[in-house]
Formats: sequence, structure tokens, C-alpha cells
Amino acid sequence: MITQMAESPALKRKREEKESENGSAGSQNEGPAPGNFPLAELSVMKVLRESAREKAIFLHGRVNNASGDKTDAVVILEKIPFQEENITELLKKHTGLQLQMSNDIYSTYHLFLPPELNEIKTTVVYPATEKHLQKYLSRSVYLIQETGEDYKNITLPFIESQSISIQWVYNILEKKAEADRIVCENPDPINGFVLIPDFKWNQKQLEDLYLIAICHRRGIKSVRDLTAEHLPLLRNILKEGGEAIQKRFGLAKTQLRVYLHYQPSYFHLHVHFTALSYDAPGCSAERALLLSDVMYHLELDSQYYQKCPLTFPVRADEPLLKKFQEAGKA
Amino acid sequence: MITQMAESPALKRKREEKESENGSAGSQNEGPAPGNFPLAELSVMKVLRESAREKAIFLHGRVNNASGDKTDAVVILEKIPFQEENITELLKKHTGLQLQMSNDIYSTYHLFLPPELNEIKTTVVYPATEKHLQKYLSRSVYLIQETGEDYKNITLPFIESQSISIQWVYNILEKKAEADRIVCENPDPINGFVLIPDFKWNQKQLEDLYLIAICHRRGIKSVRDLTAEHLPLLRNILKEGGEAIQKRFGLAKTQLRVYLHYQPSYFHLHVHFTALSYDAPGCSAERALLLSDVMYHLELDSQYYQKCPLTFPVRADEPLLKKFQEAGKA
Repeated sequence: MITQMAESPALKRKREEKESENGSAGSQNEGPAPGNFPLAELSVMKVLRESAREKAIFLHGRVNNASGDKTDAVVILEKIPFQEENITELLKKHTGLQLQMSNDIYSTYHLFLPPELNEIKTTVVYPATEKHLQKYLSRSVYLIQETGEDYKNITLPFIESQSISIQWVYNILEKKAEADRIVCENPDPINGFVLIPDFKWNQKQLEDLYLIAICHRRGIKSVRDLTAEHLPLLRNILKEGGEAIQKRFGLAKTQLRVYLHYQPSYFHLHVHFTALSYDAPGCSAERALLLSDVMYHLELDSQYYQKCPLTFPVRADEPLLKKFQEAGKA
Repeated sequence: MITQMAESPALKRKREEKESENGSAGSQNEGPAPGNFPLAELSVMKVLRESAREKAIFLHGRVNNASGDKTDAVVILEKIPFQEENITELLKKHTGLQLQMSNDIYSTYHLFLPPELNEIKTTVVYPATEKHLQKYLSRSVYLIQETGEDYKNITLPFIESQSISIQWVYNILEKKAEADRIVCENPDPINGFVLIPDFKWNQKQLEDLYLIAICHRRGIKSVRDLTAEHLPLLRNILKEGGEAIQKRFGLAKTQLRVYLHYQPSYFHLHVHFTALSYDAPGCSAERALLLSDVMYHLELDSQYYQKCPLTFPVRADEPLLKKFQEAGKA
């Protein structure tokens, strides 16, 4: 039986990429006939990215085409999830079980299965352009330990030099856009906020619930700007945001992860609400600060976030990393 | 070539579970000889949990033992990550490529591989008790906000009532087990530690690098017990652990996420080192405390972790949740 596969993160990306590519519509004519991709003849040039957790690998390969030229391809291999209905067959038809280690009641084995019970989802982008290769390339990530001084001397000047528009945030706050998506609002200009589903969430299932609270007050760039003065705002977001989610979606406050990002992806204060059971992107300890912890620290010391070191990840190609490196801080 | 496999979240749980079991030490004698687990004869009773993202499935099965009784087992199947060095061989030796869909420059295929190039990591808990089955069963998760007082009044008495053996930790520290796996050691009984690869990591690829530093000093149950007195120990772990990883595995300190869990899965202080690029299980903000933050807080206030609120997730079936509920705190 040939199994249909759940769409991988890669395929989602594929779709995004397709939209961002110009002039690719006619290019499939240069490729081989469907079904004949010469996988065995692919020369692997580079591993663009791997995910050990998701059991996927992204390859840049080259194939010789009919005219003798080498043509680039992106090949994505991803193991498929187990399927409940196949499990009994799979256990019965295995072709080998080799002990790896044994300790008390626990043991681990290498198990080998017939190929048809253990397929690999393979996605091919062919011919691939340099743009595709860049898009799939994973870049190394480094941690920056930013002191309060580093923020003032390096990060803040950098943010200010960027002058990135956040008009889209103001459009939401002013009901010029996405007004129909608002889940709840506290209209107070100082201590109020708008709660809205994140674009990553389709609102179809609670498993990956994701909403964002955006404060009305302007000028709070990130957690670095917070002082005890902002505690009423943060309390409103935590309490009213949680209540609105419970009322609308039925998920209790104790089933929510409520946090800020540092660095945020845009410099207008916002708070993330995700389902606790959802392994949401960006909720790792090096990027996410629990709102309850932030409030505790501000209660301890109004200037806590102007002084404390903050850790955040940057990709190798991000200009902020270069700024820290130039300052001898990374 | 037979490939070592990366370990699943299941194996971490293995350790947790091991501690929570009493009287299991001699029970392996009831099981079959190592290497002979009768996988093909397993009757699958129930799927305890699945992870489509991680390509893993947790089964409750039963086998007939020698005396004709049926014995419970937990069997965990997990596909292993791709390994860069095998990719070319894998592409050349595939046994089939079937077109699934084609659109413009994009196409997807079903790919079939020889069994030895596509193994499954299999973990067996056998014989398994009801406690094991319950432990692996997937359940809702709730957040607990534990104040310092809650720790003293609810959590600490609960931990103490459990009297869970951590003999396996002492075995490592005393070189009675896993001595060949030690990556580095500072033998100081107060400020020293042992650094060892976590069972989840097969040491074959850096993508999912995962090591654990276990302190030599006994009696530090968790971050709740830490005071400024422990700063030299924590500094040693951060500095020497990071240096050892750089030396042995070539990953710089800035490419590591170094953190403690709260609640930990066993109550002897240990520190997690994972590759920053690895979306490791248990590194979410509600479970993981960055070691650098912990050290900063202890420098601010030696009693910080006896006083501060700590947030942690509990599964619906965990007795600690019930304790908090009974106290009107969850």
C-alpha cells in the first residue's frame, strides 16, 4: 500500500516559495518527464539543512540534463510518520531486530523493515535557481549575551538605524486592517491592548492555538523598555487576554503559554499566547520570556530589564551579530 | 553499516520512569534474554501516544512468556535522523521512486530504501507495569505557578514522600556505569561534575547534540536548592562543560543552549547542554531555565530561588497537580 503523506514544513515552504518566484511557470519544460527524476545520478553538492528532530534533510544536488549541462536541484527527504493501521503488519514483517543496549527492564534495538513499510517522502525542486538554494539554506545560529550596557551601546543604535515601518501594527490598533479578527480589546490608550489570532494559526483546532496581544501604547519597543510603570498594562494583558481565550476558545489559562520574545520580530510591545501543548516555534528558553516572570522581575526592581543580561539567538547572516562581533562581544 | 540512533523523548522518560519504579531492579530476570524480544509476536493493545512531527509511536503490547502468561510491554518506535555521510549511498541504492504529484518545478515522490539504510530505533520496556503504561500515555498538560511557599508546603513534601531511587546517577558519578561515555569530569566533590552524552543523542551528528552535566555534590535536588554558595559549581559547569564540548565536538559555546529543567525529571542537580540549532524537547520557556539567568539571579540575591515563583508544566495524571489542586493553587 502506498501511503499519502502529511505535508511537511518543507512543502509549506515550497508553496511560499512558489509565490515568491517569478518566471518559474514555464521552466518545468527544461526538467525531465514527471516520474523520471534521476535520483541515483544526483551529485550531492551540499546539505542545505537538516532536522534531526523531524527526520528531514534538504540537499542541493546537480544532475546532468539532456544537453550535457549540469542543472541544480533541491531534494528534500523526510521520513513519514508511523500510521496506526500499519503497526501490526510492520511488527510482523520486520526483517531484523538487533540489540543495541540493555539495562534492567529497558532495552534498545535497531529494527529493520521492508522498504514498502518505511517509505521516505521526497520533494524535488528542479530546476532550482540560486534563490531556491538560498531559501532552503540553514544558517548557523549563535547566542548573544546582551548586558544592559550592550543594549544601550550596540542594540539600540542598531534598531534605531533600521527605521523599519510598523504601520501594519498601527493599522490593526486603529481598526484600519484586520478589525474583524479581533478577539478582544481593552481600548485604554495607556493600559489597553488588542488580542488577535496570529497568522500562523488557522483557528481550526486548539492544538496549535496562537494569539498575539498588541498594546495600544506606542513607543515600548521591547521588554528592554519595560519598567514597573507598565505593570498595569501587563496585568491587563495576562488577565483579560487569558479570559477572552477561555471564553472564545475554551482553553483555560493554565493551558496557555504567555510570553514575550527577545529580540522581538517587530519593535512594538506584543505578547504571545500559545497552547501549552503546542510546541510553538520561538518558545525556547533562549528566545521566550514568560510574562509572569517579567512581571515578577518588574515588581522586584522597576529597572530590572534595563540592567539584566538577556540572551537571544541570531542567525549568522544577521547584521546585529556583526555589530556585536565588531564590539568584541560575540 | 548499522547506524546508531538518536534517542527519542521516550528515552529521557525512560530515565524518569526508572527512578519512579520501585523494585524493578530484579525484574529483568522475568523478561527474555537480551536480544530476543519477540517483536513479531507482540499483540498491540493500544497506541499510547504518537508524534507525527518526530515520527515516533508509543505502543502498549503484550507477549506470551514462557509460563503462558501474558506480560505487558511498552514498545517505542522512532525513525532515526538522516546522516549526511550516508546520503549519497542512500540515493544510489534506493529500491524505488514513485511519483506522487508534480506541479511546475515542484514534484513529490514516494522513495523506498533498503532496510539497512532506513532503520528504526526501537525501545522496549519489558516487563512493563501499569505505572509504565500510564507514564507513556499522552495526556493534557497544565501550568503550575509555584511560589516559594508552595514549594515548601506542597512540592517539597511531595518529593520527599516519593523516595525515588537515583542509584543510576550515583553509578555514573562513581564510574560503576557508563564510565566509558564520560566526556569530561571535574572531580571536585563540592564544585565538580561529570559531563556525559544524554541517552537521546547518538553522538553521530551535531544537529541534535545533547549532553548532561551531573554535579558530584549530593543533596541539591533542583534549582530550588541553589544559593550563591553554588555559584562556583555552576561556573565550572558552564565554563568547563562548554570547553569540553568545543574541544570534543567542535561546537562553540555560543552555539549551545545550557539550561536546567524545573521540575527536573530526577532530583539530583544536572544541567542540559543542547545544540542551539536543535529544537530539543523540554527547552520551552515554561520548563527550561537558562544557566546564565540562574547565575545572574543568584548573584543578585543568594535566596532568589527560594523565593521566586517558578512555572512548570504537569500532565493531568501527575499526582503533584492533584496536590496543588487540593491546596486550591491550581
